[in-house]
Amino acid sequence: MSQETRPLDALNQSKGKRVIVKLRSHGGKNEEGEMIGILKAFDLHLNLWLEDAELVVGDSKTKLGTVVLRGDNILFISPE
Amino acid sequence: MSQETRPLDALNQSKGKRVIVKLRSHGGKNEEGEMIGILKAFDLHLNLWLEDAELVVGDSKTKLGTVVLRGDNILFISPE
Amino acid sequence: MSQETRPLDALNQSKGKRVIVKLRSHGGKNEEGEMIGILKAFDLHLNLWLEDAELVVGDSKTKLGTVVLRGDNILFISPE
Amino acid sequence: MSQETRPLDALNQSKGKRVIVKLRSHGGKNEEGEMIGILKAFDLHLNLWLEDAELVVGDSKTKLGTVVLRGDNILFISPE
Amino acid sequence: MSQETRPLDALNQSKGKRVIVKLRSHGGKNEEGEMIGILKAFDLHLNLWLEDAELVVGDSKTKLGTVVLRGDNILFISPE
Amino acid sequence: MSQETRPLDALNQSKGKRVIVKLRSHGGKNEEGEMIGILKAFDLHLNLWLEDAELVVGDSKTKLGTVVLRGDNILFISPE
Amino acid sequence: MSQETRPLDALNQSKGKRVIVKLRSHGGKNEEGEMIGILKAFDLHLNLWLEDAELVVGDSKTKLGTVVLRGDNILFISPE
Repeated sequence: MSQETRPLDALNQSKGKRVIVKLRSHGGKNEEGEMIGILKAFDLHLNLWLEDAELVVGDSKTKLGTVVLRGDNILFISPE
Repeated sequence: MSQETRPLDALNQSKGKRVIVKLRSHGGKNEEGEMIGILKAFDLHLNLWLEDAELVVGDSKTKLGTVVLRGDNILFISPE
Repeated sequence: MSQETRPLDALNQSKGKRVIVKLRSHGGKNEEGEMIGILKAFDLHLNLWLEDAELVVGDSKTKLGTVVLRGDNILFISPE
Repeated sequence: MSQETRPLDALNQSKGKRVIVKLRSHGGKNEEGEMIGILKAFDLHLNLWLEDAELVVGDSKTKLGTVVLRGDNILFISPE
Repeated sequence: MSQETRPLDALNQSKGKRVIVKLRSHGGKNEEGEMIGILKAFDLHLNLWLEDAELVVGDSKTKLGTVVLRGDNILFISPE
Repeated sequence: MSQETRPLDALNQSKGKRVIVKLRSHGGKNEEGEMIGILKAFDLHLNLWLEDAELVVGDSKTKLGTVVLRGDNILFISPE
Repeated sequence: MSQETRPLDALNQSKGKRVIVKLRSHGGKNEEGEMIGILKAFDLHLNLWLEDAELVVGDSKTKLGTVVLRGDNILFISPE
């Protein structure tokens, strides 16, 4: 599959741009929300390095600055 | 098993076409729904690159455009 | 264990036939049900390619046609 | 550890005999029960091939015939 | 780490003796309990082969005889 | 990363000393607590061998003696 | 990807500095909170060695000193 387009290629195009990361729930309350930030780096586990990140849960917004988000908390990633 | 038909071959036939992705729940509310979009790429983990994607949860529809959907949130994928 | 009978050999015998796939729950509502369809292909993760698939949840039946079902949602598979 | 007794050796002794498989819950209702059947085959993931299988949940019994049960749904296996 | 003491060495000392296995919950009711039995064998996944096993959940005791317990259901193992 | 300090080096310093192990929940009741004991051994999965172990859940304390605690139940480990 | 920036590079820059670690829930109560401490070491699983660590859950603060935090409990890590 070396020369095929792969899902993570979409993230390469989003580097340096703002992305919306929808978090998946694990049955608790504090992670049903979105992390929004500028995509600096990602890896194969979908761990993300975001800058100027902000966590949005309902009406609540928290500015976080630099964030390393663990990939297994992610539902989807979408460029803003 | 190299020459047998495999489940992911079905996705190869859906590239460039609209697919319905039923999301599985993790006990929370925000991911019981469907993601509908044009399948641009997929990998062995069932991570998907969708274009013109739309998230449908009950009566609510959200246009998302480009989406990288993490494969472990998927219940099933079906061409529209 | 190369010459022993293995569980997936049972699925080889079901290729081209209708199977009932009991879905396991993840704590949510939308995946406590059964997927019924003709088994076209499977892999070692128990990902399934079904044709003429139908999702049955309680009294509700949804015709889906072609489906790629992610293996980790499966409780068991049984030929009809 | 090649010559030591291993847990799966117990299953080798149960081949062709009836076993009770206690299913573990994932937070839902439909898999708190037991699968009873004749053990035809198993693999290292504890995937099981059962014949003459019957699902018992509370007072409800469902005859299933041949079943491939995914190993990660299992709490324990016990010969009848 | 080949010559260091490892956690599973504690289980080697318990072979042939009664152990208490505290089961972890997965959100359901039927696996909050203890399995007590004579440790015949274990593997690196903490799958256990128990003899004369008994499942204790609250006031309820169930005699099971031989049991293969899947390791990922275990919270801890302790010699009686 | 061979010569860098790693998280498990902190556990090497705690061998032979009392540690507090905060257990993570899986949605059930019986594993929201702490295991306290003398750290005899650990492995890369964070499986622990504890001596003189005691399980503390709310006001309830249970003396357990020798315990092999499966690593995936652990939230964090801290020397007392 | 050997010369690309990766998410864990952000953690290298935080070594010796205070970080906020948002814990993810597993459906229970005791791990919806934050661990704050000085990052001494991390590994590829995002296991963390923190010094002067403090667990903050709602209004409750617990001083913990040295902590080895298992990576799979982490939602995100952010320098203070």
